[in-house]
Amino acid sequence: MEKSVRAFKAAAGPDEQLVIPGFYGAMPGGEIRVLSRGGSDITGSIVAAIVGADLYENWTDVSGILMADPRIIENPRRIDRITYSELHELAYMGANVLHEGAIYPVRERGIPIHIRNTNDPDSPGTLIVESCEGEADGAPITGIAGRKDFTVVTIYKNQRADELGIIRRALEVFEKYSVKVEHIPSGIESFSVVVATEQVQNCIYDIAAEIKAVCDPSDIRIINGISLIATVGRNMVYKPGMSGRLFAALGSEGVNIRMIAQGSDEINIIVGVENKDFETTIRSIYKTFIGGKE
Amino acid sequence: MEKSVRAFKAAAGPDEQLVIPGFYGAMPGGEIRVLSRGGSDITGSIVAAIVGADLYENWTDVSGILMADPRIIENPRRIDRITYSELHELAYMGANVLHEGAIYPVRERGIPIHIRNTNDPDSPGTLIVESCEGEADGAPITGIAGRKDFTVVTIYKNQRADELGIIRRALEVFEKYSVKVEHIPSGIESFSVVVATEQVQNCIYDIAAEIKAVCDPSDIRIINGISLIATVGRNMVYKPGMSGRLFAALGSEGVNIRMIAQGSDEINIIVGVENKDFETTIRSIYKTFIGGKE
Repeated sequence: MEKSVRAFKAAAGPDEQLVIPGFYGAMPGGEIRVLSRGGSDITGSIVAAIVGADLYENWTDVSGILMADPRIIENPRRIDRITYSELHELAYMGANVLHEGAIYPVRERGIPIHIRNTNDPDSPGTLIVESCEGEADGAPITGIAGRKDFTVVTIYKNQRADELGIIRRALEVFEKYSVKVEHIPSGIESFSVVVATEQVQNCIYDIAAEIKAVCDPSDIRIINGISLIATVGRNMVYKPGMSGRLFAALGSEGVNIRMIAQGSDEINIIVGVENKDFETTIRSIYKTFIGGKE
Repeated sequence: MEKSVRAFKAAAGPDEQLVIPGFYGAMPGGEIRVLSRGGSDITGSIVAAIVGADLYENWTDVSGILMADPRIIENPRRIDRITYSELHELAYMGANVLHEGAIYPVRERGIPIHIRNTNDPDSPGTLIVESCEGEADGAPITGIAGRKDFTVVTIYKNQRADELGIIRRALEVFEKYSVKVEHIPSGIESFSVVVATEQVQNCIYDIAAEIKAVCDPSDIRIINGISLIATVGRNMVYKPGMSGRLFAALGSEGVNIRMIAQGSDEINIIVGVENKDFETTIRSIYKTFIGGKE
């Protein structure tokens, strides 16, 4: 980044209007290489950061970021404003948004990103900002995203809640196999570790055997085919009744909620359902909070 | 236990009807000592285990185990049947039931416990069994219990979900201070560790400082005054809509749900609320699932 700043300052005079082609960069040795998919977004973000822009307008071929996957929800609503945190959560949970590398350069400097549509320049697009405090948007949620194919390893132990270190010992086993832990939903006589199935495909039985050795559980059960679906929205925090509406909606569709993850100060609720309920869950949440035809 | 078996066999003939006083035992040196509160329940349980009883009838001064704390719910319903697991969960979460030491001797041998009321011998009491499979009880839940005064330590880190071992490192700090971890609700950019406040009263800032050192978080927040309330019921498993009704009820009472803990294969849902909402939460759940006057 420092090298880019120097190169830019050497090339550009003050107060100039610049047109800079994107999608490529220089390797440490000076060799020119094209970036990966979404690379011109990265170029734009770096240049915006270098010049200390007030706003990074990213003109693309869609009218902004959508509230849900258009392959699941027909004609989903556009997100007007979204915070960087919300965007990161939606992206992490599977939403197809900006390349992560296009976000950090401007986010670090507090520069908002404005996604606009070249084919529809009158559309207001989506504004990505650090914080939306004090702004009352219409929608109670910002977006919905989900990923399929998680594995849930549940470790049963009669006195687990009284045993010091049992969860830590189980996590060490996953860490030894370089498996990223997504969530650790816990009850009183058991706790579960949720991981992406692809991460444990070749080592799940080794992991189970090692957990058996270090945790001495009464039982271990492994369930595959779980989807995680995140409902993200800064307006959800501390708002009584949001989770009630969400779970009531899923209940009325007959969706079995297999786990719930919600931090104590979070802008999302994540539910685990069976893969077969993936689309139903997203549609049901969308209909409940956003409405419109499915 | 083996010594008790030998002593019993030496003292009792076959096919005798025995009356055995409870509430005391012998120290390893032979000295006689009374047991702690609830001690005669322990005596009864040990004797039932030794003789291989079909049933351990425990005659007491109440008509069984209640679905909720009678100091919060006026005249709560009696539990007809409860599994050992459910009983353990309710007891762990604060319900005042049998002494734990009175459960293990008979539970290990698969002997049911029947709580009966000496003052009301016609009351059916509460039957405690290993498993109630196939029996359809009327009540959708078995009981509600809760404890006040938990502390929630929330650790924020932008890329926490991508970082291997960060939760394990935080848990190690709590373990070093011998603090029992109750739950670990997690989001995408943060995770929380829930512990009993009394366990961290003198070390919470040391713990926070060490977490800062080993996790390099963007922020740590500590919230006190959280209550955990467990709704326990074998009939809740895999039943769509139960959590919806629960959360909708709390929402309509204006209760702020600060965290949710639910294992993937659990017979309970645990919600975290502010201490001020403790009674409201229990009453609201009771009214929703059991009904009757508050």
